[in-house]
Amino acid sequence: MDERDIRALLENLRAGRVSTAQALDQLRHLPFEDLGFAKIDHHRALRQGYTEVIFGRGKTPQQVAQIVRGMLRVKGSKQNILITRADQKIFAAVRRMSRSARFHPLSGVIAIRRNREITGKGTVLVVSAGTSDIPIAEEALLTAETMGNRVESLYDVGVAGLHRLMKHHAKLTSARVIICVAGMEGALPSVVAGLVAVPVIAVPTSIGYGASFSGVAALLGMLNSCASNVSVVNIDNGFGAACVATVINRL
Amino acid sequence: MDERDIRALLENLRAGRVSTAQALDQLRHLPFEDLGFAKIDHHRALRQGYTEVIFGRGKTPQQVAQIVRGMLRVKGSKQNILITRADQKIFAAVRRMSRSARFHPLSGVIAIRRNREITGKGTVLVVSAGTSDIPIAEEALLTAETMGNRVESLYDVGVAGLHRLMKHHAKLTSARVIICVAGMEGALPSVVAGLVAVPVIAVPTSIGYGASFSGVAALLGMLNSCASNVSVVNIDNGFGAACVATVINRL
Amino acid sequence: MDERDIRALLENLRAGRVSTAQALDQLRHLPFEDLGFAKIDHHRALRQGYTEVIFGRGKTPQQVAQIVRGMLRVKGSKQNILITRADQKIFAAVRRMSRSARFHPLSGVIAIRRNREITGKGTVLVVSAGTSDIPIAEEALLTAETMGNRVESLYDVGVAGLHRLMKHHAKLTSARVIICVAGMEGALPSVVAGLVAVPVIAVPTSIGYGASFSGVAALLGMLNSCASNVSVVNIDNGFGAACVATVINRL
Amino acid sequence: MDERDIRALLENLRAGRVSTAQALDQLRHLPFEDLGFAKIDHHRALRQGYTEVIFGRGKTPQQVAQIVRGMLRVKGSKQNILITRADQKIFAAVRRMSRSARFHPLSGVIAIRRNREITGKGTVLVVSAGTSDIPIAEEALLTAETMGNRVESLYDVGVAGLHRLMKHHAKLTSARVIICVAGMEGALPSVVAGLVAVPVIAVPTSIGYGASFSGVAALLGMLNSCASNVSVVNIDNGFGAACVATVINRL
Amino acid sequence: MDERDIRALLENLRAGRVSTAQALDQLRHLPFEDLGFAKIDHHRALRQGYTEVIFGRGKTPQQVAQIVRGMLRVKGSKQNILITRADQKIFAAVRRMSRSARFHPLSGVIAIRRNREITGKGTVLVVSAGTSDIPIAEEALLTAETMGNRVESLYDVGVAGLHRLMKHHAKLTSARVIICVAGMEGALPSVVAGLVAVPVIAVPTSIGYGASFSGVAALLGMLNSCASNVSVVNIDNGFGAACVATVINRL
Amino acid sequence: MDERDIRALLENLRAGRVSTAQALDQLRHLPFEDLGFAKIDHHRALRQGYTEVIFGRGKTPQQVAQIVRGMLRVKGSKQNILITRADQKIFAAVRRMSRSARFHPLSGVIAIRRNREITGKGTVLVVSAGTSDIPIAEEALLTAETMGNRVESLYDVGVAGLHRLMKHHAKLTSARVIICVAGMEGALPSVVAGLVAVPVIAVPTSIGYGASFSGVAALLGMLNSCASNVSVVNIDNGFGAACVATVINRL
Amino acid sequence: MDERDIRALLENLRAGRVSTAQALDQLRHLPFEDLGFAKIDHHRALRQGYTEVIFGRGKTPQQVAQIVRGMLRVKGSKQNILITRADQKIFAAVRRMSRSARFHPLSGVIAIRRNREITGKGTVLVVSAGTSDIPIAEEALLTAETMGNRVESLYDVGVAGLHRLMKHHAKLTSARVIICVAGMEGALPSVVAGLVAVPVIAVPTSIGYGASFSGVAALLGMLNSCASNVSVVNIDNGFGAACVATVINRL
Amino acid sequence: MDERDIRALLENLRAGRVSTAQALDQLRHLPFEDLGFAKIDHHRALRQGYTEVIFGRGKTPQQVAQIVRGMLRVKGSKQNILITRADQKIFAAVRRMSRSARFHPLSGVIAIRRNREITGKGTVLVVSAGTSDIPIAEEALLTAETMGNRVESLYDVGVAGLHRLMKHHAKLTSARVIICVAGMEGALPSVVAGLVAVPVIAVPTSIGYGASFSGVAALLGMLNSCASNVSVVNIDNGFGAACVATVINRL
Repeated sequence: MDERDIRALLENLRAGRVSTAQALDQLRHLPFEDLGFAKIDHHRALRQGYTEVIFGRGKTPQQVAQIVRGMLRVKGSKQNILITRADQKIFAAVRRMSRSARFHPLSGVIAIRRNREITGKGTVLVVSAGTSDIPIAEEALLTAETMGNRVESLYDVGVAGLHRLMKHHAKLTSARVIICVAGMEGALPSVVAGLVAVPVIAVPTSIGYGASFSGVAALLGMLNSCASNVSVVNIDNGFGAACVATVINRL
Repeated sequence: MDERDIRALLENLRAGRVSTAQALDQLRHLPFEDLGFAKIDHHRALRQGYTEVIFGRGKTPQQVAQIVRGMLRVKGSKQNILITRADQKIFAAVRRMSRSARFHPLSGVIAIRRNREITGKGTVLVVSAGTSDIPIAEEALLTAETMGNRVESLYDVGVAGLHRLMKHHAKLTSARVIICVAGMEGALPSVVAGLVAVPVIAVPTSIGYGASFSGVAALLGMLNSCASNVSVVNIDNGFGAACVATVINRL
Repeated sequence: MDERDIRALLENLRAGRVSTAQALDQLRHLPFEDLGFAKIDHHRALRQGYTEVIFGRGKTPQQVAQIVRGMLRVKGSKQNILITRADQKIFAAVRRMSRSARFHPLSGVIAIRRNREITGKGTVLVVSAGTSDIPIAEEALLTAETMGNRVESLYDVGVAGLHRLMKHHAKLTSARVIICVAGMEGALPSVVAGLVAVPVIAVPTSIGYGASFSGVAALLGMLNSCASNVSVVNIDNGFGAACVATVINRL
Repeated sequence: MDERDIRALLENLRAGRVSTAQALDQLRHLPFEDLGFAKIDHHRALRQGYTEVIFGRGKTPQQVAQIVRGMLRVKGSKQNILITRADQKIFAAVRRMSRSARFHPLSGVIAIRRNREITGKGTVLVVSAGTSDIPIAEEALLTAETMGNRVESLYDVGVAGLHRLMKHHAKLTSARVIICVAGMEGALPSVVAGLVAVPVIAVPTSIGYGASFSGVAALLGMLNSCASNVSVVNIDNGFGAACVATVINRL
Repeated sequence: MDERDIRALLENLRAGRVSTAQALDQLRHLPFEDLGFAKIDHHRALRQGYTEVIFGRGKTPQQVAQIVRGMLRVKGSKQNILITRADQKIFAAVRRMSRSARFHPLSGVIAIRRNREITGKGTVLVVSAGTSDIPIAEEALLTAETMGNRVESLYDVGVAGLHRLMKHHAKLTSARVIICVAGMEGALPSVVAGLVAVPVIAVPTSIGYGASFSGVAALLGMLNSCASNVSVVNIDNGFGAACVATVINRL
Repeated sequence: MDERDIRALLENLRAGRVSTAQALDQLRHLPFEDLGFAKIDHHRALRQGYTEVIFGRGKTPQQVAQIVRGMLRVKGSKQNILITRADQKIFAAVRRMSRSARFHPLSGVIAIRRNREITGKGTVLVVSAGTSDIPIAEEALLTAETMGNRVESLYDVGVAGLHRLMKHHAKLTSARVIICVAGMEGALPSVVAGLVAVPVIAVPTSIGYGASFSGVAALLGMLNSCASNVSVVNIDNGFGAACVATVINRL
Repeated sequence: MDERDIRALLENLRAGRVSTAQALDQLRHLPFEDLGFAKIDHHRALRQGYTEVIFGRGKTPQQVAQIVRGMLRVKGSKQNILITRADQKIFAAVRRMSRSARFHPLSGVIAIRRNREITGKGTVLVVSAGTSDIPIAEEALLTAETMGNRVESLYDVGVAGLHRLMKHHAKLTSARVIICVAGMEGALPSVVAGLVAVPVIAVPTSIGYGASFSGVAALLGMLNSCASNVSVVNIDNGFGAACVATVINRL
Repeated sequence: MDERDIRALLENLRAGRVSTAQALDQLRHLPFEDLGFAKIDHHRALRQGYTEVIFGRGKTPQQVAQIVRGMLRVKGSKQNILITRADQKIFAAVRRMSRSARFHPLSGVIAIRRNREITGKGTVLVVSAGTSDIPIAEEALLTAETMGNRVESLYDVGVAGLHRLMKHHAKLTSARVIICVAGMEGALPSVVAGLVAVPVIAVPTSIGYGASFSGVAALLGMLNSCASNVSVVNIDNGFGAACVATVINRL
């Protein structure tokens, strides 16, 4: 159905040769994806309504600041703004746009909270193996929080000190979604997932050396987890894990 | 030693039938993990209460049949039994244990349904890119169904025929969890995830040739998805994706 | 603009509150991609009008035959049908659908020619390095021919016998597009591309052993070609190279 | 046939023992590649007549400047000069050779335009997925422009915001060659190629992190594209893509 | 809750001060892992009683210093403290906590010796191939020494100068455990292991260039050693090798 | 010291200018490696005195049988003979050489026990994660046993069922050396090593699929173990692990 | 200079307007590579004069036999013919062409000796590590012999039994070129090269398992050899090593 | 033959029961490796007599200077001293040891020539593909020269400008050994080797970007060369190539 067909349809409608309902139906059933894409747009709006996100790395402070300014200019918007992989220079530029911007240097996250509504139904728990994994864990935590989740954390509970993990068993079992961050051999998600009945999102980190291959060992470990409630995101992708956790926690 | 045993011990202690030292000793020397892992066990029981799973590959028909027999002997159990990566020979052996066993040769799945209760809250939709991905998609579908989910499928909707995907937009948006199965460049999950607001579990398949490297290209594509509601399981791991979908769908 | 908006627009049109032109314009300028996708469809139809393609590997003879039957049933269609990576069994099944099917065992190609119109403007030349590369070269050649190109071939002209290549210099320079197929170190495209001023599409083959890593060495060699008129397709993807050559040759 | 033979032939010719035609024929039929290589040379001259190119990385500013000086000294030449992967220091050195040198810091391209003739027949469109891909996209754009093509660009239209791509559908369909630049999962070329009937040259970029492996994920995705009008160049090779686009656009 | 607490609880139960139900409840609801993992903990305490270890890389000087302070505060502890992968800045911060800290800049090791008891039964010999491997060899040597082993070293005895190795044959045969550190092709452990009848722990180093791939060549060489008394630790993991040597040497 | 020197020395000895003791001493302290190599031989004899080993794969049944015959002919030898990676055909050929040969089809091990002396000081415990890992675990067990160790096994105690492992805590802690066999993510050695104070030799297996890459995931996981008493042998190298365990257990 | 120019030149020569010397000079200084390529041809003829080689794998018995027949038809030729990677079927087909063909099943080599002249100046020694490497070692040996070298072999002298290698020290030092074949960790070339002052050509074999990655471990080990007189050919490329040895041995 | 045997032999000699010649002979023919190793030493002395080599990278200027001082102190030695991978700081330190030290900053080579004798029989020609490969080519050239070879170079003759290579055909054919240095696709050695009948030692360089993977593409290309007189050394190993060339050129 091309433009000519649509024109004909509209003219038939105008001339009363087809009813509105018929026209609508034809429009709906033709290259369906029209409406489909309108919905995409809508969905994205709905979903991103909570948070606008900027990936800071590879952008100049000026580029980031311009994007932020564009977001702040949208009238009536109360969306939170999140900038990941930022540094002090980006923060300085963003700060000039919004005084309420907060920078978390450990994780490189900048958050502009304009909306503190909680939309997630349960708690998103971020578990991490070693102290070196904390930057990525914090990226996940701050992202999940900015996106409207109640969050909790449990850090430095690697499998070499299993008792440290077990001591917080209650915390584990009270979470609705768990983000599990680990480098080196990446065994923590398997163990955590064996202790709970909720989805565990595994985040391999590039922490380690030698044959960790900047997170590949952890990534492979997690993809091969013998626990069946584990799915995996990219190496160091705390942000992505938090997004997945958010869509799950809103169900 | 389970709760009942412990209760009996404590009552004996209280009644003076054993000394404090004896009770302490028994507690200390018994499989300490009972208390600790009783909960684990319980969790696993609760979770796996629906389905016992056997990974068929690398096991002889006899081994599989023995495990099935063991499961069938558990009194009062109404758990479904699922065998993945099975073949005709394994099926023949299992069939001798249970006449209600059904074999799905395309996916290599054997299911013994003893319980058809639906415990998932919404629909798990399995989307696949090419006809060659169907075996893995079917493994996911049958697993999800056996684990108590309402399931639907949408096959052969690769990004080379995007309109085929769009035609089923309603199906996509009505699912609560989507399992997205694709080989080659693995781009389908990115596109599907851009159209919905629910979690998308991506399953790379080993379909393809040359630089697909038996699914590595698809795996990497999915891990690097620019859509943020995607998490990934192992190559060809339709089973694992269904498990993740199940824990999400029960939330 | 969602369904409600469109309904309103149509009612306004019907009621004469907007003109047909205005309605059409609004429809065109709204989620434009509607029309866009119609065009996709159209484009694909136009493009694939020449040839329907089935990837045979991983499909059963029955599956392939059913798809062929579906294609043959389309009334008035004169499209050629191409099946790649087929074998004798698939051919037997296809043969029952169409007596004019021809099988090329070396390349595993089945072609059903119903249309011999030449739509490419020049000659597509397929050059290959060693005799072992011929199956992939033939796949490219037969695909290009079935898709409406004049084709020529130049085989066994690897860089170890550079004079063999040079002897056919005229053939090289008279081609409009060159497909260059090579395994091992994959150096042929660099040399060929240095001799001509037309696009060279390089096809690495999995021919070789040891550190050829089933075509990876050739693939990397081609991607790193120091000649600048070379682009690359997947390992063993003679079919894909022919498709790219076809779209170029129709320009 | 060596020097002695040729000398004998020439003497026979001079002595009237063979005719000019015979001598020419003998010369033509001997190590044919003589003429062949003359053509190579000629071809390269013809082709590079438009543009001389220097790869800046790994060369000192002095080395680059010397090469530029050599090019500028060639009498009567009006060739454009292009330096890729340059930096401010190289530019400073080049500037001293030619005041008309222009530096594009985002892409690291220096262009000395001495000739603005358009030799490409249609438009080369450069499409890129994310803002971080722009440096490579610009390298492609500036190279294509310096080589005599009409160019257009369409940036930041990644598959996560498919509607942004669709909005420019007309631009896509009016191009004669498309260069498609993307990092991360590299899915954009598949989607773009599905919308058009012209050759799409895919450029993977090293943008991304973790399992993007500095562009390997994007590269593999593109090599495995399920769209058949896609060919691929090296990671970050915007220059090479523009060269391929140029030879196609001159057809 | 430790053994004393549990004893008290049991006595209260016996004395009728708590009911069976209350006792059971307390047992069930207390950090159950105490009993289970108390043993683990105990093991770790026993084992690590000699040495507390901090991995310095990726931690700020302040973080390291705080951990050291925590360790120093433990009353009555005489454990040695070892910090690996440290630098001058970390040392400065640690030095403020303990004047007896010693920094070994070549290996990046900081040791605080509070206990010089020898607990290993024989000598741990550290053998290294080239002078460039010495930093990792020293990390192993210092770790082993701090953990209570008699240590010896034999450096620069690569297989290119086999006679240098042979000259110290007695040293090799008098060791109880050998740590063998080598980069490049990593052949030294095979040769050393062929000369002795004790366990050889191979440490690949990232020394080398090109196809050494930062230690991968050495790692693979060692994993494929044709000598059967070789086991391997991670690339550059001198620390880990010393730990393995220590548990063996205490047997 | 070269031939001339030695000749001079001998002449001095003959002439009575040096004593036999002096001559012997000079010989001993010069090109030391002479004696050294004699020792090698001796060591190997001592060590291999227990067991002669043949790697069966890649050898014909005839080749294996010939080697066995050679071994059996050595007079007075009571060495055990072990053939790994053997099959039924090799066994048939070996059986003809020795009636006491025993074949273990699960692990492909053939053992000819001529000597049942226990030379290891403690127990070698073989732990494995899944039932599919048992062939490799059995190779380790049978090798260790044939080499004179007391052996025990603990199978199917993967981290997905941690309680199964914990129930056998006593077995773990009573071993002198532990061989830990696991495929998939290879997390078991980390957990086991955290529970004991003895050396743990990790054996990755090629069990798994997709991104397990035939044991690479497990191998990397083990090399990156956060437990410090773990060392690693090659993928599927149960034999090698047993050899390492044997040299440790004889200390 | 194209055909027209050359015709003009020849006519000028014929007409006496230029001298033979001038004409020759012009011809010589024009696209020189003409003569160059004639030489190539000549060189190849000279070099291959000894042996024609056919790579058997991937060719049908018919294809191989046809090539052989072509070679045998060349009048007066006394070249040896070598077919590598052949099997019994290829041999059967070749045998029908030449009764003097000999098949070496272990190495898959077929040789047709028509010429037993020794053209190499010294001995080519083929050393191999394990019995499993013998097929590749034999390919090298037979190739070198067929190409006119005196050859010797020294098999099963891996570094685990260093004394076996040392016993043949004289053989090592009397060779003019050494081909060293090894799988697993590939350490043998380093050790052999340390004992001699002649070129050592290392051939990694695909023998091994697990992390040998079909010869990659050996390849990397050899490329990273700490001995400086080692160069490397492809995995399992015994043929190539013999070719390199042959050109060296003819110097 | 062990110590006791040797003692007996010496006593027999002393007692006149064997002659000096007999004793010497027995010593020579016994555990050969004694003398063998002396020979090694001797060989190494002979070989390294020309040049002492220090690998500069990873050594401090002080370490390098100390080694140089040690070498300079050896009385009567006239060996050249070569330091590779050095920098300005190392040179400053070395300069203080020897005023005749020369630094070549492009290649990072320091040479102390004390001996200009030519020991190679022919010319070693170093050919390189691009200007960026020159540092490695120069390392090879200077090493070969310092080791006593006549050397020539031919730079910037990559296969994209094949005519540049052909112009120097005479140079190629007059060399006795060719070192061929190339990055990117590494095709130059195949082409060069096709033009000559002498050994070609291929040196892949890390020049390139993207899928060149720091020289891996070139390395694989060279290992898979279809020319049979090519062997390969490590990436960027100009030094190693020169060593191999030297041992060949001395034959």
